[in-house]
Amino acid sequence: MTTSQAESATDSRTADGDSPEKPVFALHRGGKIEVVSTVPVRDRDDLSLAYTPGVAEVCLAIADQPAKVYDYTWKSNTVAVVTDGTAVLGLGDIGPAASLPVMEGKALLFKTFGGVDAVPVALDCTSVEDVVETVVRIAPAFGGINLEDISAPRCFEIEELLQQRLDIPVFHDDQHGTAIVVLAALENAAKLTGRGLADLRVVVSGAGAAGLAVTRILLAAGIGDIAVADSKGLLGPKRTDLAGHKAQVRGTTNSAGLDGSVADALAGADVFLGLSAGKVPEEVVATMAPNSMIFAMANPDPEVDPAVARRTAAVVATGRSDYPNQINNVLAFPGVFAGSLRVRASRVTEGMKMAAAAALAAVVGDDLAPEYVIPSVFDKRVGPAVADAVAQAARADGVARI
Amino acid sequence: MTTSQAESATDSRTADGDSPEKPVFALHRGGKIEVVSTVPVRDRDDLSLAYTPGVAEVCLAIADQPAKVYDYTWKSNTVAVVTDGTAVLGLGDIGPAASLPVMEGKALLFKTFGGVDAVPVALDCTSVEDVVETVVRIAPAFGGINLEDISAPRCFEIEELLQQRLDIPVFHDDQHGTAIVVLAALENAAKLTGRGLADLRVVVSGAGAAGLAVTRILLAAGIGDIAVADSKGLLGPKRTDLAGHKAQVRGTTNSAGLDGSVADALAGADVFLGLSAGKVPEEVVATMAPNSMIFAMANPDPEVDPAVARRTAAVVATGRSDYPNQINNVLAFPGVFAGSLRVRASRVTEGMKMAAAAALAAVVGDDLAPEYVIPSVFDKRVGPAVADAVAQAARADGVARI
Repeated sequence: MTTSQAESATDSRTADGDSPEKPVFALHRGGKIEVVSTVPVRDRDDLSLAYTPGVAEVCLAIADQPAKVYDYTWKSNTVAVVTDGTAVLGLGDIGPAASLPVMEGKALLFKTFGGVDAVPVALDCTSVEDVVETVVRIAPAFGGINLEDISAPRCFEIEELLQQRLDIPVFHDDQHGTAIVVLAALENAAKLTGRGLADLRVVVSGAGAAGLAVTRILLAAGIGDIAVADSKGLLGPKRTDLAGHKAQVRGTTNSAGLDGSVADALAGADVFLGLSAGKVPEEVVATMAPNSMIFAMANPDPEVDPAVARRTAAVVATGRSDYPNQINNVLAFPGVFAGSLRVRASRVTEGMKMAAAAALAAVVGDDLAPEYVIPSVFDKRVGPAVADAVAQAARADGVARI
Repeated sequence: MTTSQAESATDSRTADGDSPEKPVFALHRGGKIEVVSTVPVRDRDDLSLAYTPGVAEVCLAIADQPAKVYDYTWKSNTVAVVTDGTAVLGLGDIGPAASLPVMEGKALLFKTFGGVDAVPVALDCTSVEDVVETVVRIAPAFGGINLEDISAPRCFEIEELLQQRLDIPVFHDDQHGTAIVVLAALENAAKLTGRGLADLRVVVSGAGAAGLAVTRILLAAGIGDIAVADSKGLLGPKRTDLAGHKAQVRGTTNSAGLDGSVADALAGADVFLGLSAGKVPEEVVATMAPNSMIFAMANPDPEVDPAVARRTAAVVATGRSDYPNQINNVLAFPGVFAGSLRVRASRVTEGMKMAAAAALAAVVGDDLAPEYVIPSVFDKRVGPAVADAVAQAARADGVARI
């Protein structure tokens, strides 16, 4: 579909012609991305360079020196957006085919905000072993792997195993994209309210992929005290049901040894980070410390109503585009991959994620205000700033190849 | 790389700046294809339709009615170009990364000549089971699978197993693309010289993927007598080393029961089809029947020198773009997939291949001449003509879904 077709698509009708098609369906008709040539194919001379016989010389050069695949193919700028369709948006396990509109959307965000080519890969398998093995086998054509909408706890193991086996960045956006943007917003919110990260007592509600990754990056950034809760309550000393990543996170958080609910931890806390759909009522929010920060990121229904949050908090952020301070992964992943690809990074290090967050926070600069702790997704400075910082950090961390 | 960059690329220099880069390398720098958005992403309203929250409704519609994946995603127009890098051009087993320039080239041909979106998939595995399993797992995002440059005899089994397991067309272009174009050219050459296909005695030199597929389509088209040779000689009664596909083909060809070499079969033959690099000298060519047809398709060195061939043959074709009558797969595969995708075909039937060949032959029409038995690859009528014929044949064969 061309752009002009899309623009007029609100007028289109369904195939059976009996009722107007809703705009969101009209826009999606035929998909949202396409593959186009970047070189001319006008005549035989063009063909003999772009295809046979000329292409053979390029193939042989790569066979001879494998690193040249980055010089002469789209691997240098291309990422696979890989899902198995098990945790798509808030919709759950809807399968690979039904996940495709999201993966195509991701691909267009990659291009629009990072200049990165992205290919949707929707897998018809779900075991950790099968997903890992499949991605390893298709990896030669890609400069990076963006994991997307894969359910926890499988997503942790899949990312870890893939990064062990591949020499290109493997990045689970639902974890690290969210973590980077939350950290950036929190850095600015702390600055605005005159506190350091080490001074903050934080409550994270949600111990899925995003909740655990946010917790880890905040610990790495020097947050002093974090209490994490899942749907059963705080990850505290009395919990006997914790294993794997949740048990690990309990070991490094909750220094006060709290048990109970999110409400129990929120009394006197500085920061609420909502990464589940669990609602928090006003009387609980009111028990937080003065100048609190409430990031209620559940979509479309924030854990705390933003109007309520604003009555007590100094800074309020949500996951929604119709409120100020939108926590949106698109502020991170295009630049993270653009920067990684630029230096042919072999992985995304903790340092690269921290650098991405710092760069993102810095875009706000002197315009910092309660309703502006994080840039707009349409701020054209974001992608390049994040990419530059990530590339530089990759070099500093020794994972850059050029 | 943009088109204008590519046009000036002949002037570019290598990264170390010490010597000018050859044009074919300059053209390939950064790759030859990109993924772009077909819908606008200008503001929050656009984003809320193309991505969250709007996209969720489209996902749910597909989850509810799986066939809608064709309506609302790029699956409807997208093909995976799958290789394992084991038989790339004439270069052999150079591996998946080194095969990428060819796969990207294929993708740009798909788009340029068929309007089809194609994604290079270069697999880091070579066993039949692994290749099949991997392609099955990545299939949900694609409307078709184009197998490419996979060595024989694995390519036969891979294609067959994939077609059994998938409900989308699986088409090994090295086999069927070549077969379609050869049949089209031969139909026209026979017409030009006043003979029917059943009257022709044909010698096929080469029993790899292309040779065997050409033999099969010619048998299906009613060619009366075909002798096939591999590097050890004719597939004849005395051969004790034949198994699998070669043994099968021997059972349906060589009615005269010839043993020996290509030269033995060429005496009195009407047609030579060269699909290997085995040279045939002039004194052997001279033993062919009057008004012979010589298709010497090895690239870049035809099995028979075209100047020599012209001294005895009525029609000469090669695989080269700098001689008349180029036998080039690009005349077939873009239209075959465009037509298949248009009707959401579940497979490519023999009828669809025959229809493609007939449509391709018909483009030549009344301009038929010894140096024009097959259209130019730049003839804009070819893609649409093949696509229309293939779509119609898919409906006739009951494999179309719309």
